[in-house]
Amino acid sequence: MKIAILPGDGIGPEVTAEALRVLDALSLPGLVLFEGDVGGIAYKRHGHPLPAETLEMARGADAVLFGAVGDPECDDLPREHRPEQAILGLRSELGLFANLRPAAGYPGLEDMSSLRPEVARGIDLLVVRELNGDVYFGDKGERSSDGGREGWDAMSYNEAEVRRIAHTGFRAAQKRRGRLTSVDKANVLETSRIWRETVIEVAAEYPDVELEHMYVDNAAMQMVRSPGQFDVILTGNLFGDILSDQASACVGSIGLLASASLGERQTEFGTFGLYEPIHGSAPDIAGQGKANPIAAILSLAMLLRHSLGRETEAGRIERAVAKVVASDVRGADLGGSATTSEIGDAVLRALS
Amino acid sequence: MKIAILPGDGIGPEVTAEALRVLDALSLPGLVLFEGDVGGIAYKRHGHPLPAETLEMARGADAVLFGAVGDPECDDLPREHRPEQAILGLRSELGLFANLRPAAGYPGLEDMSSLRPEVARGIDLLVVRELNGDVYFGDKGERSSDGGREGWDAMSYNEAEVRRIAHTGFRAAQKRRGRLTSVDKANVLETSRIWRETVIEVAAEYPDVELEHMYVDNAAMQMVRSPGQFDVILTGNLFGDILSDQASACVGSIGLLASASLGERQTEFGTFGLYEPIHGSAPDIAGQGKANPIAAILSLAMLLRHSLGRETEAGRIERAVAKVVASDVRGADLGGSATTSEIGDAVLRALS
Ligand SMILES: CC(C)[C@H](C(=O)O)[C@@H](O)C(=O)O
Ligand SMILES: CC(C)[C@H](C(=O)O)[C@@H](O)C(=O)O
Repeated sequence: MKIAILPGDGIGPEVTAEALRVLDALSLPGLVLFEGDVGGIAYKRHGHPLPAETLEMARGADAVLFGAVGDPECDDLPREHRPEQAILGLRSELGLFANLRPAAGYPGLEDMSSLRPEVARGIDLLVVRELNGDVYFGDKGERSSDGGREGWDAMSYNEAEVRRIAHTGFRAAQKRRGRLTSVDKANVLETSRIWRETVIEVAAEYPDVELEHMYVDNAAMQMVRSPGQFDVILTGNLFGDILSDQASACVGSIGLLASASLGERQTEFGTFGLYEPIHGSAPDIAGQGKANPIAAILSLAMLLRHSLGRETEAGRIERAVAKVVASDVRGADLGGSATTSEIGDAVLRALS
Repeated sequence: MKIAILPGDGIGPEVTAEALRVLDALSLPGLVLFEGDVGGIAYKRHGHPLPAETLEMARGADAVLFGAVGDPECDDLPREHRPEQAILGLRSELGLFANLRPAAGYPGLEDMSSLRPEVARGIDLLVVRELNGDVYFGDKGERSSDGGREGWDAMSYNEAEVRRIAHTGFRAAQKRRGRLTSVDKANVLETSRIWRETVIEVAAEYPDVELEHMYVDNAAMQMVRSPGQFDVILTGNLFGDILSDQASACVGSIGLLASASLGERQTEFGTFGLYEPIHGSAPDIAGQGKANPIAAILSLAMLLRHSLGRETEAGRIERAVAKVVASDVRGADLGGSATTSEIGDAVLRALS
């Protein structure tokens, strides 16, 4: 079982280190770890945010454990050298088309949300975001027009692209509460019309899942008014970017949220994927022991489940984390004073 | 002073009727009203959601007072005949490029928001949304691809388009708290890169306004976490659609929110514009006297201010509305039992 470890920038390395301590404590046999540079640090060392060696390492692994990328010192670089290009490059080069972002309130943490506690408490949703298409990866550029310089981007989805992510969404809904909300802007976009028609076609194979369609503006509204109504939200790359961040904010404890980006390739043990905390590189608190490693540790749990077929260990980690979150060991993000490694220690204790 | 009245579908006619009672009570000299069909009702009567006569009537007026469009009976029509096309057609045909959507909490109504009262109370923002460009009005269509049928839409902005809406945004910020947040996705979109560069260029003319840039995913997150941080949000058509609805939901009382869509044309008295409540046609409660007419009445106030140069009357209406909202006359949307016309009566009483 080969795992590529890409700690990246900012708090990426410190939270990834805690996840690796947890992995170590599980003493899984036959595990091989590789570590590579990615993001701003990779640019500084190798002249590119996603060096060829890093990409090859990821390609050769069964799973990638990713920290975070983003570095203010790189803000003025041309776009192709900026740290974010590393994650976009990994998604497209590795065919990671399915982004799973669960957002659920932790009992006892309702007061971290800016939503009313009774609203926050009811959140238990999964955003399934398409990650290889849409306006992200279409042609784009600058041209001149009557109105001066013009920036343009081509948005599109074809049936095959929608079909494969729709299957991911419907299968996830079957394992959850059996409800799927497909979000689009079919009253304006042709891309969304094909999206909606294809989702309806795929739905016929999942008679046990209840499908509804929602325009993205209404979805953004409903996510504030009554986020508890959602089970699985299936959507494209751009709307998924916006709605999944909004959902994380509704839960209120971004330091606890993990994500999986899955490809089509099946490994010996499961599905190839990349796993990352959703909190980003947080350069302002990097290196100070203030970062909450729980999201990284939960990303590891997702990795064990989806890519290594280790459901038992994934469950063990999640139960240990729930115990720690319910305890008085809280990081700065949750109003406490526990350091990154103290939180790691607590998870390790709860695990044994 | 010519006003085109387009009541439209669902609750549009009943809320517009109350706004007209208020207009009548002001006894403005030299006012001429025209009424036209728009939306589903126009399709049923004339075979098109935006009949040529309606468009001509709107074009010839100094301002348009718009109710709402949307009718479930039209859901299965081809897109070009659906009610929403009427509003898109009016925006583009009339050159209404600047959509102003204020969202502010009303004292005493904090409990209507699903945000914590102390968070909801702090909201006082204005979304300035570009309304004539972006992926809404680019080329679009369906083509065949390796992956089957493919829907596509062209997104773009040129410097001239960004410049004129940026001026609207900066001028609005000058009259408010002097802060402008420009929202884009410049880490992924070329459209956003031109957007951002042009906004920076325009900012040089407004040294008294503090400009910040925010990615749309972060903006959706911040809008939940601490919406009180925003003064003016300047953004494109698509992101503005999503964020302005999200902002309305944060305030919690959608039945109270109005909007203006302004063009470039100057009339004798102000700027030509179209004014509408943001709540939509709400077909489920149409014709039952349950709709809250306050948003329509506040749309009239915006009309008087921006298109007819009647600041005094606009202020009078707004103060009357504030009195009614603070009183115990509440519509069903705010947990009360006052009917549409009872709320209208209360505003009329407060006005005199
Ligand atoms: C960094 C950026 C390109 C990326 C995206 O937009 O996908 C991020 O926001 C995310 O959601 O992972
Ligand atoms: C009806 C629809 C086309 C419209 C839009 O997307 O602009 C609406 O959501 C709005 O915001 O006015």
